[in-house]
Amino acid sequence: MSSGSRFPASVHADRLRRAAVETGSRDLLALLVTPSSDYAYLLGYLPPAMERLTCLIVPAEGTPALVLPRLEEPLARHELGELADQIDILAWDETDDPFAAVRRRVSPDGGPMRAAVQDQMFARFVLRLGAALDPVQLVEAGPAMAALRRRKTAEEVSRLRAAAAAADQAMIAITGERLSGRSEEEVSRRIRELLLDAGHDTADFAIVASGPNSASPHHHPGERVIEAGDAVVLDIGGRRDGYASDTTRTAVVGEPAAEFAALYAVLREAQVAACDAVAPGVAARDIDRTARRIIDEAGYGDCFIHRTGHGIGMETHEEPYLVESNAEPLQAGDAFSIEPGIYVSGRWGARIEDILVCTQDGGERLNTTGRDLYVVS
Amino acid sequence: MSSGSRFPASVHADRLRRAAVETGSRDLLALLVTPSSDYAYLLGYLPPAMERLTCLIVPAEGTPALVLPRLEEPLARHELGELADQIDILAWDETDDPFAAVRRRVSPDGGPMRAAVQDQMFARFVLRLGAALDPVQLVEAGPAMAALRRRKTAEEVSRLRAAAAAADQAMIAITGERLSGRSEEEVSRRIRELLLDAGHDTADFAIVASGPNSASPHHHPGERVIEAGDAVVLDIGGRRDGYASDTTRTAVVGEPAAEFAALYAVLREAQVAACDAVAPGVAARDIDRTARRIIDEAGYGDCFIHRTGHGIGMETHEEPYLVESNAEPLQAGDAFSIEPGIYVSGRWGARIEDILVCTQDGGERLNTTGRDLYVVS
Repeated sequence: MSSGSRFPASVHADRLRRAAVETGSRDLLALLVTPSSDYAYLLGYLPPAMERLTCLIVPAEGTPALVLPRLEEPLARHELGELADQIDILAWDETDDPFAAVRRRVSPDGGPMRAAVQDQMFARFVLRLGAALDPVQLVEAGPAMAALRRRKTAEEVSRLRAAAAAADQAMIAITGERLSGRSEEEVSRRIRELLLDAGHDTADFAIVASGPNSASPHHHPGERVIEAGDAVVLDIGGRRDGYASDTTRTAVVGEPAAEFAALYAVLREAQVAACDAVAPGVAARDIDRTARRIIDEAGYGDCFIHRTGHGIGMETHEEPYLVESNAEPLQAGDAFSIEPGIYVSGRWGARIEDILVCTQDGGERLNTTGRDLYVVS
Repeated sequence: MSSGSRFPASVHADRLRRAAVETGSRDLLALLVTPSSDYAYLLGYLPPAMERLTCLIVPAEGTPALVLPRLEEPLARHELGELADQIDILAWDETDDPFAAVRRRVSPDGGPMRAAVQDQMFARFVLRLGAALDPVQLVEAGPAMAALRRRKTAEEVSRLRAAAAAADQAMIAITGERLSGRSEEEVSRRIRELLLDAGHDTADFAIVASGPNSASPHHHPGERVIEAGDAVVLDIGGRRDGYASDTTRTAVVGEPAAEFAALYAVLREAQVAACDAVAPGVAARDIDRTARRIIDEAGYGDCFIHRTGHGIGMETHEEPYLVESNAEPLQAGDAFSIEPGIYVSGRWGARIEDILVCTQDGGERLNTTGRDLYVVS
């Protein structure tokens, strides 16, 4: 991620204050945040996530601290700008023990005996922090961070909308090209170019799953050459100004077999119904159930082998998840995918995916390309 | 990472067997490996590292198991090919508990009470596995994996050599272009193109640090426009066939100031001396000391704010680290960077970085571009 995720320093200062409130209200000593989208959300820049410890410490009270390797101090000061005045920057040299530096800032002192670690913190840091902070217990920071990040602001929605529009532009372009005779890999590389041309800062994925491979939801594009009659699932996305895009359309080379067209019609109905069901207060699982019921009733239940959707924001996958196990109500500001799929092993598959934002008036689709089967050459 | 890191199935089967030996000899119940370069090293493909648990379990005895979300089973079977016959694939559905699935495969049963987690496993998985496997203790898998991966085979060295040659080609191209009048960001984007043009599968980083920014080792290229008299540190790399490149050269726009030329001469001497010191049996720290002594004696000791180098292979940074705290002897097959730097805050900085392989006859430099200061327009 580049500095594209940055907002004015006052926004990040406010996020740090809200993070401190979460720390206190969840009976935590501190949030410990290593480089990740949470780090970028709070500080507005993202250093490389590598083997040296960089760790933001957000206590319930008092000044946040940033423990980092000496060689990254110039980067941090440059990127933080005036925000640096509100953080104690604690640089460690190559032969220092950075875990001891964290321990000195996170001492229980009669307070809570728990500290929360960022969801994607590396195991080596988790285990070493656990030893350094013992008997303080490490717990997951995910719930605290989701409380901060899940409901998007108007500015965040606007960035998601721009990312979705860029992905749509790439999708329109690739489905306007001849696909038959080209390998999946070649089409995937072309989509990455198109994502960048359309204004993404990074092209993060470009699944091209053709013929029998279209039954593999996370297929890696390979040497298979696309041919007449193939179903082709195109699942593409990247990042623009720090926010993610993610959209899927299904194409077929030439006229579809009647059986495939029938399968697709069921899928389309399920995806549209799930989108239409979005509203504040509706349980996340009910969106999943809406799509699943239609697919089940048409006899394809065993072929829909994943949840209906995932939240999206600075990460491609984040809260809220639209899955049977999630009974939480949707809230205005939630942004998520709706992407049912039907996969018939060894034969073919299809998926339709849009990003939506939950508004007071229902779901707003950020992707606006047509949801019919794309007939391509 | 694409499937470019794959070797024949027999190589991966052998790696799995050697991993099982490490498991046993280190008194571990199992190695637990989530998507990462370790996962790709063992299995030859890399699924997305996301919020759903995918975990390879390598016990000391018996069949390895792969716990993965149902929707990734087709990808795994497709990518594993015949290797899939030697692994129990345990797919979980969206509403299953994948941690319970791991527990069923990793039960102490009178054996050791420790399991090792992959170094970059996400905290959320570490904490949930810790709870699921309790009272089995989690420890770091890093040492076991380094024992497998640190010394490169001839084929791995050949891939590192090809990656280095591709990075050299990009470096020659960019230093042949006019840099003044262009922003750091623009030059960085151009380098990413050149890395891909030269045969990299991904362009992972392209640091362009100009003028005073050259004193920031991990600077993020920004809007600053390069101008006459600037020092420009170019630190670039990507991946080719699953192996990483990483090289740094320092340029200056027009004739260098005498003071900068003097600084650079010291740096060059230090980098050359460190490269010349490489041989099997030499302590890693002694390579660091060799470079540091020359820089210290010239009065720049406080300006060399990082270690001398890091191992490289499927990851840009891995074992062995050339740092004061590492007394281990180098071994034939070790591959690592040698990259001293001198940084004068607010003014300028310089770094020279080559990748070397330790051979029986000493260090072989895989980067072959000139190490003089590059005078550019």
